[in-house]
Amino acid sequence: MRVLILGGDGYLGWPTAMRFAAHGHEVVVVDNYLRRDLAKATASEALLTTPKLPERVKIFEQQSGKAIKVIIADCTDAMALNNIFTTAFNGAAPETVIHYAEQPSGPYSMRGFTEAQTTFNNNLQSTFNLIWAVIQHAPDCHIIKLGTMGEYGTPNIDIEEGWINIEHKGRQDKFLFPRQAGTLYHTTKVLDTDLLWFYVRTYGLRVTDLMQGPVYGLITDESSNDDRLLPNFHYDDIFGTVLNRFLVQAVAGIPLTVYGSGGQTRGYLNIKDTLQCVALAATQPAPHSSLRVLNQFTEQFSVNQLAEKISRVGKQLGLKVSIQTIPNPRKELETHYYNAAHQGLIEMGLVPNLLTDATVAGMLTIIEKHKALIDTSKIMPRVTWR
Amino acid sequence: MRVLILGGDGYLGWPTAMRFAAHGHEVVVVDNYLRRDLAKATASEALLTTPKLPERVKIFEQQSGKAIKVIIADCTDAMALNNIFTTAFNGAAPETVIHYAEQPSGPYSMRGFTEAQTTFNNNLQSTFNLIWAVIQHAPDCHIIKLGTMGEYGTPNIDIEEGWINIEHKGRQDKFLFPRQAGTLYHTTKVLDTDLLWFYVRTYGLRVTDLMQGPVYGLITDESSNDDRLLPNFHYDDIFGTVLNRFLVQAVAGIPLTVYGSGGQTRGYLNIKDTLQCVALAATQPAPHSSLRVLNQFTEQFSVNQLAEKISRVGKQLGLKVSIQTIPNPRKELETHYYNAAHQGLIEMGLVPNLLTDATVAGMLTIIEKHKALIDTSKIMPRVTWR
Repeated sequence: MRVLILGGDGYLGWPTAMRFAAHGHEVVVVDNYLRRDLAKATASEALLTTPKLPERVKIFEQQSGKAIKVIIADCTDAMALNNIFTTAFNGAAPETVIHYAEQPSGPYSMRGFTEAQTTFNNNLQSTFNLIWAVIQHAPDCHIIKLGTMGEYGTPNIDIEEGWINIEHKGRQDKFLFPRQAGTLYHTTKVLDTDLLWFYVRTYGLRVTDLMQGPVYGLITDESSNDDRLLPNFHYDDIFGTVLNRFLVQAVAGIPLTVYGSGGQTRGYLNIKDTLQCVALAATQPAPHSSLRVLNQFTEQFSVNQLAEKISRVGKQLGLKVSIQTIPNPRKELETHYYNAAHQGLIEMGLVPNLLTDATVAGMLTIIEKHKALIDTSKIMPRVTWR
Repeated sequence: MRVLILGGDGYLGWPTAMRFAAHGHEVVVVDNYLRRDLAKATASEALLTTPKLPERVKIFEQQSGKAIKVIIADCTDAMALNNIFTTAFNGAAPETVIHYAEQPSGPYSMRGFTEAQTTFNNNLQSTFNLIWAVIQHAPDCHIIKLGTMGEYGTPNIDIEEGWINIEHKGRQDKFLFPRQAGTLYHTTKVLDTDLLWFYVRTYGLRVTDLMQGPVYGLITDESSNDDRLLPNFHYDDIFGTVLNRFLVQAVAGIPLTVYGSGGQTRGYLNIKDTLQCVALAATQPAPHSSLRVLNQFTEQFSVNQLAEKISRVGKQLGLKVSIQTIPNPRKELETHYYNAAHQGLIEMGLVPNLLTDATVAGMLTIIEKHKALIDTSKIMPRVTWR
């Protein structure tokens, strides 16, 4: 399968690229290092300084014998993206395009006007250009778009997988499940969804929208032998997800910082399961004129539950772990109903890697190896929108 | 009241500017003539070649003694818009901003990549920049945003005013009424809504979203004495609304062209009522942290009903009117359920100008005066997205 990965340098993009290449697919990755630049500009660099794409690709090829083609380009440049669609696979059209080319941080998007503008322009333009590149050059190409569970927010009803049947005054119809997100980043994903759904029903595009929960973990099958192939692991307040941040805090011997009362509940998944899900979506593509929405997580936890779990396992490993409640820098509900469906990917074949004590211990052990690199000044909230 | 009107050269923007000025408000209009340029580029010029803003403002001032300040600027330029917010009223912040600064044609947005890109960039950027200009320079300013009934599409349930209570599996919550539009233009308005709602609930903005149906008519109180003050009246397939097109076809002696079976039903209103509604929204502003949504139309008609009405009145005036069904160039339902609430503006004081025979006759008579200017080559569909 010819697989084009937009945002192939990212926390998920690079492991995805290795996975598809390892399984014999023809892979082209595109990135402009925007996230690296933004992380540097906000003093939020990843734990490990991973090599840039051309070097990572060489290391991966030496170890696996599998090639990945790299194109450094900006997906907000429509001409550049069109050019990639027509030339990346020597004239053949991509069969699957995986769209990770978005500024992925909620806190970054809430930092101020410039950051909001960067997020808005980058995310909307890259999605718009992707849609038109597919319409013009690869109408049969299956678009896999990484959405986020955050698009739904925390409604007081059960969250379904993308769609809901509404009965109203004796009549009924099916609609996109209501979306109302908590940051501008998450809101750009809502806009992406609206835009994709319009082009799906009007131009017959085929799209899978993977509504992903917060991801944790470092190791995937293809990176287990060489740290230079690990993903860009962020533990800071801006680009780090909560569980990764807690793991680093536990190793660093500083308190796990719970924002507010800690009742915030979300659906989480292991990075290994992200790769499974994307592979399942690619090998079982959505039909034409279909926006298939799948909620991509494996377990629900509150922030308190996560903190307690890491504290308990950390202590078993001899770490000094404490939990500290700090004022919530975010505007969000701290106690709320949360019950989200997530059967679609299970039915397609997902075998979850759950957050067992052994998994937590494994992650703590890897981070322990790199303990000297932890910069504790990057962890406390530096962006607030309360 | 200090009123800033973005898109003040348009079919609605200019009459709105005159109305607020005539009622003693301090009015600044902003436009970059984008619609004029796009109409020219697509051979879709308005019936009357109206003077540009500086000249129109002079004519209006001579007649009314009321001044309107003109700023020629592009609202997609954030710096320019911020500058307007801080300087247009000599340092005072605008109290009301009316946002018409969008590419307003569905067919134009469906013409191809370039037109889609222009629509997407213009409409999203102008809304984003407006939001941030308000946050940074005029947080108490009431934003009146022209939305469209087209955002809702044609669902199989009653359309409420912006919001809906959903009961689901024994629980309930209130959400934005589902939106799924038929063109990219209408979809940009859906994205505007999502974006505004995010910033309303996160930053406490005060917004009224006027979900307007197709508007018809030429005459408003302030333009009745001088044709040079008339709005940009479009009758072409791209920028013209259906009723205005039918009126011109009736005068030109060519058949009224019904797209497909003609059962397409929408809520319509007279341009005089647009002005009433905008004034009502401005004088009864939405509170902070509120996205107030009002469905802005007065009567529902199917396309067939409109054609029959104009045919009947036209014949009474001695015009030769026939009705012709042509293949629908659009992807839309031609028979569907349609029942939309529209009590909000009535409760605020709207006294509708309904589509009486006398109103139709009046509009036909004005167009008859300018019959020689009608270019019949502009009327048949030139854009298709079936």
